[in-house]
Amino acid sequence: MHITMDSIRPIKWLDGKLHLLDQRQLPGKEVVLEFSDVAAVAKAIRDMVVRGAPAIGITAAYAIVLAAQRHYRELAVDWRSAIEADLQILASARPTAVNLQWAITEMRRGFGLLVGDPTSSLLARARAIHDQDLAANYRMGQLGAELIQQPGAIITHCNAGALATGGYGTALGVVRCAYAKGKITRVYADETRPWLQGARLTAWELVKEQIPVTLMVDSAAATIMQRGDIRWVIVGSDRIAANGDVANKIGTYGLAIAAHFHGIKFMVVAPTTTVDLATGSGAQIEIEHRSGDELSQINSVEQSVAAADVINPAFDVTPAELIDVIVTERGVIMSPNQEKLKAMMEKAG
Amino acid sequence: MHITMDSIRPIKWLDGKLHLLDQRQLPGKEVVLEFSDVAAVAKAIRDMVVRGAPAIGITAAYAIVLAAQRHYRELAVDWRSAIEADLQILASARPTAVNLQWAITEMRRGFGLLVGDPTSSLLARARAIHDQDLAANYRMGQLGAELIQQPGAIITHCNAGALATGGYGTALGVVRCAYAKGKITRVYADETRPWLQGARLTAWELVKEQIPVTLMVDSAAATIMQRGDIRWVIVGSDRIAANGDVANKIGTYGLAIAAHFHGIKFMVVAPTTTVDLATGSGAQIEIEHRSGDELSQINSVEQSVAAADVINPAFDVTPAELIDVIVTERGVIMSPNQEKLKAMMEKAG
Repeated sequence: MHITMDSIRPIKWLDGKLHLLDQRQLPGKEVVLEFSDVAAVAKAIRDMVVRGAPAIGITAAYAIVLAAQRHYRELAVDWRSAIEADLQILASARPTAVNLQWAITEMRRGFGLLVGDPTSSLLARARAIHDQDLAANYRMGQLGAELIQQPGAIITHCNAGALATGGYGTALGVVRCAYAKGKITRVYADETRPWLQGARLTAWELVKEQIPVTLMVDSAAATIMQRGDIRWVIVGSDRIAANGDVANKIGTYGLAIAAHFHGIKFMVVAPTTTVDLATGSGAQIEIEHRSGDELSQINSVEQSVAAADVINPAFDVTPAELIDVIVTERGVIMSPNQEKLKAMMEKAG
Repeated sequence: MHITMDSIRPIKWLDGKLHLLDQRQLPGKEVVLEFSDVAAVAKAIRDMVVRGAPAIGITAAYAIVLAAQRHYRELAVDWRSAIEADLQILASARPTAVNLQWAITEMRRGFGLLVGDPTSSLLARARAIHDQDLAANYRMGQLGAELIQQPGAIITHCNAGALATGGYGTALGVVRCAYAKGKITRVYADETRPWLQGARLTAWELVKEQIPVTLMVDSAAATIMQRGDIRWVIVGSDRIAANGDVANKIGTYGLAIAAHFHGIKFMVVAPTTTVDLATGSGAQIEIEHRSGDELSQINSVEQSVAAADVINPAFDVTPAELIDVIVTERGVIMSPNQEKLKAMMEKAG
């Protein structure tokens, strides 16, 4: 598998199958897994073969094509009712990213109108979702880069890059665009425990594109901010509530507090598919708690963890008050709040 | 090796040799290493066989006994000048903890008065340093526990426990004492990347004593604070500057900012041997930077890190303004500043 500049594509549809780059094995191995079964895709989402809110939405869309194809073959007249259980399995694969629910709703929307074999129509719809995400990322990259006035270093957390999306990335899309314009000199990447998305995925992406990247432990971010060369913190999001509260990878909230303390600006980059007006505030966002094994599966820590309790929330919520700007493909919202978010979502998409 | 309640002793002098519990192998294996050579002890300090500011001070004191013993045997009249190179090697083993320098100064103080074989006198002095540290920890445990009014949970970072000291611990000494009095219901322990002192050492100590402990990734601390049941953050220190700025394990500063943001009190527990009036403020404290390998040596991250830069500061500095109280064996300083610290240090020890 050869990947060239800005062509990291974690999700591909090839020869009637869904291909996912196995992100659990990066950066050591670039392994692509093939899927033709929706339950296996749901498991892949749960196990983080693919992760990142936009990426799991796109993956679910393709998985629905697989499901419809199979059910239509098995009992053509009944595929619409047979697929419901699959949609349920997909929807419950991971709870926090709203893009997953969004993609399922989008795919289901046209079910009633389809005549005959739904595969090609649904595939076209899934491809459109994928293409729209990519286009949104390019647009957000430009909008976000425009916000950066003084060139300098930035901090990012987790991986909101090509790997987390249809390609290019949300936060890393802004980084790619701003770096090309000379507005970003260096990216400080939090390693992002426990899953090490920063060390394994963000560093991998940026090294590939020869963007200067410095890896650090998550808890070093505050002292790096103290030194004075950080201009922005730029992150993605898994769900943005109606009031502008942002759910994102665990650690984002602490980073926002530290940025606020140092007078460093905080930018959230996410497509409108991540905005969930049905959820009033961050307090209502369901936060996924994952197995404590994710903490213990390094070195010889098992023994300790076996006897200790472990709390492993995968996400946290950053209140809107700590966010300077939300960048979406429909525009930029400074000092986000309910009114501004609602107005933007009501603009034609 | 059998360890019972409150008898974790990382440093022992037995049969003319220094015994160190190898903290790199905890919690998987309890291995005790024997030392009779001062250079090997300096390397053990550098490699973190033993770590924690008070513990490395005590270790250096015993190492000086080993050095004097050897030099006296080799050329009795010349041991005082021969030992100078060893003191130098010990002093440069790790730069941030001032207890190391303090212990060397304490041990050297009596060199001039010694007649004949210095071993037994110096051993008595090293034992006194060790005993004083233990006594200081018990005292700080009581003083710190008295500060906790409402019972609740606390967060601690790194390991400021029996393993980091002569025994009992600084921050964990307060935890031990306060838990016994019913003032602490649960300890949230940051895993403390990259060396995982929280997961490997703090969890190990607390599980041994049946104090409820919940392990979490460092970056989860802010969201745990948000939930409202955390009453205090309690940490140790590697060096306290004259103005009350505190150097401690990387991540302490971010934790202090988050505590401040949530109105949670922040307690630093350290013996007066950690106070360095010769260093005016935190900005003048030398921060040790360790190898980037400490980040990459887990799972398959090597490939990423090989091409990315890594910054790995072992400590950060928390300004005095973010600290509610410093607890030493000589007393408690609320809202620490230069004047209060100086006054306390001038009290008879």
